[in-house]
Amino acid sequence: MGKTIVGVIGAGQVSAAGYQVAREVGRLLGEKGAVLVCGGLSGVMEAACRGCREAGGETLGILPGPEGKEANPYVSLAVATNMGHARNVIIAHTAQALIAVEGEYGTLSEMAIALKLGRPVVALNSWPGLDGVMEAASAEEAVALALGCIGRMNNGLL
Amino acid sequence: MGKTIVGVIGAGQVSAAGYQVAREVGRLLGEKGAVLVCGGLSGVMEAACRGCREAGGETLGILPGPEGKEANPYVSLAVATNMGHARNVIIAHTAQALIAVEGEYGTLSEMAIALKLGRPVVALNSWPGLDGVMEAASAEEAVALALGCIGRMNNGLL
Amino acid sequence: MGKTIVGVIGAGQVSAAGYQVAREVGRLLGEKGAVLVCGGLSGVMEAACRGCREAGGETLGILPGPEGKEANPYVSLAVATNMGHARNVIIAHTAQALIAVEGEYGTLSEMAIALKLGRPVVALNSWPGLDGVMEAASAEEAVALALGCIGRMNNGLL
Amino acid sequence: MGKTIVGVIGAGQVSAAGYQVAREVGRLLGEKGAVLVCGGLSGVMEAACRGCREAGGETLGILPGPEGKEANPYVSLAVATNMGHARNVIIAHTAQALIAVEGEYGTLSEMAIALKLGRPVVALNSWPGLDGVMEAASAEEAVALALGCIGRMNNGLL
Repeated sequence: MGKTIVGVIGAGQVSAAGYQVAREVGRLLGEKGAVLVCGGLSGVMEAACRGCREAGGETLGILPGPEGKEANPYVSLAVATNMGHARNVIIAHTAQALIAVEGEYGTLSEMAIALKLGRPVVALNSWPGLDGVMEAASAEEAVALALGCIGRMNNGLL
Repeated sequence: MGKTIVGVIGAGQVSAAGYQVAREVGRLLGEKGAVLVCGGLSGVMEAACRGCREAGGETLGILPGPEGKEANPYVSLAVATNMGHARNVIIAHTAQALIAVEGEYGTLSEMAIALKLGRPVVALNSWPGLDGVMEAASAEEAVALALGCIGRMNNGLL
Repeated sequence: MGKTIVGVIGAGQVSAAGYQVAREVGRLLGEKGAVLVCGGLSGVMEAACRGCREAGGETLGILPGPEGKEANPYVSLAVATNMGHARNVIIAHTAQALIAVEGEYGTLSEMAIALKLGRPVVALNSWPGLDGVMEAASAEEAVALALGCIGRMNNGLL
Repeated sequence: MGKTIVGVIGAGQVSAAGYQVAREVGRLLGEKGAVLVCGGLSGVMEAACRGCREAGGETLGILPGPEGKEANPYVSLAVATNMGHARNVIIAHTAQALIAVEGEYGTLSEMAIALKLGRPVVALNSWPGLDGVMEAASAEEAVALALGCIGRMNNGLL
């Protein structure tokens, strides 16, 4: 069986509280051995990568621009798409489940495309009230929900 | 000055009432000489193309698959992307304003990406309560709002 | 039956002779009622669009950047992809046959992807000796070869 | 400094000799600590991934379809693009240098786009006579040429 891949989505600008919760999400994913995939830039993306790397995890950044070097320093593997926001669709296809932390329109767009593709989506202080999104109250709960869904999918239960 | 291009977005399956309102949106755009751009498939996309063509207008279908022939019969020009949902991002870049009719996650994703790109977005019985979206009560109002925004942008007022 | 769509591919910088031959290709396509699709920028793309419009034809520009306004002035309909060179793949999917005029690596890449997709490819002073490419000695011959292939495909003969 | 990422490109069907040379290329890249990026499917892609993994290396597969599970079994990290051949452009942006092994039109298209982007391209029994491509006589030479170019680029010498 392949690696477990979890997307973390959120804006390039984030509150101090959002940075800490995203970092904690990343840390927990790294501890569990999941690969973190994100948009590879700053804000929530950087915080989550940082936490994941601090826990020894692997981080995949799917970048909007033409060169891998625009990745934040906590991306362990950078994919340069040169496709702008269309790279969000690639993140949704690549992740087996996604966790949204805070976020703006770009995050909403990615949550919606993930739902359209049938990927489980967990929200942490993100867009409320979206049908089909699981709301979590903490980083621990968000990671548990995402990994639980992937486990059930792998066992054919979801 | 180039052509006015308005996106009409919505699901591939639509209620009878939604079909009629989308067709009316298309008809009004055709009468005003605007080019209609959409995803080129069935439901809201077909209804809007049909109305636009019935009024003598031009319809551009940005398709998810590899061949133009999957377009609905009211698409006057078919662009085959073979990029699935990533073609929604192309629609948002190509349209100067967008009108959402009803719709599901795919529509929400497209509204969010259009807002992210700074395109005016009008909603007709679509996702409610999105910051920055103009809600319209009729096809006439939706088209007037979209064309009004494009006019103000062309005059440097928006 | 839908419109006949022919791609014209070539570099953004072109010799004076190349400009004239591309303009002639465009003119002949416009006279025959074919839609011309290209990358929408300067050089061969501009020359071909210019000729096609001068003959009353329709020109579709599939642009690499985020806004339609970067199109050359002879593009009648601009699709903004924001996908850089990946837009070349969209041109190959959208065209029913392609004509290459002169050209560099970008043109070669597009010829190869079109061949991979099974699209007929005609070369006019372009990359020589590519298996499966039809070489033409004049704009007239190039357009006749491209339209002939499309006609045979439409009749199920190719 | 980030990881060294080398693309290996070639067809999904390969000769027995081509399979062995691609596997050897992968093995050498893995031994040198380079990450191998490829299209993630069969043939040359599978052979190169296999060799790289056998040497303890990391392999990134940029897939054309919607799900990571279509990757060959030697891909350690799968990115699902759902973008068909447009994923080749992503490989060219992501790799710092590319090695082509045998190959058909798809490979030619990728070599051309890589040259267009200024990436060093090495050919092993692949398309001959392309300006700007370095031809190698063995897997050892191909890997030495690719890594040499990346080293000089990292030192600002290329």
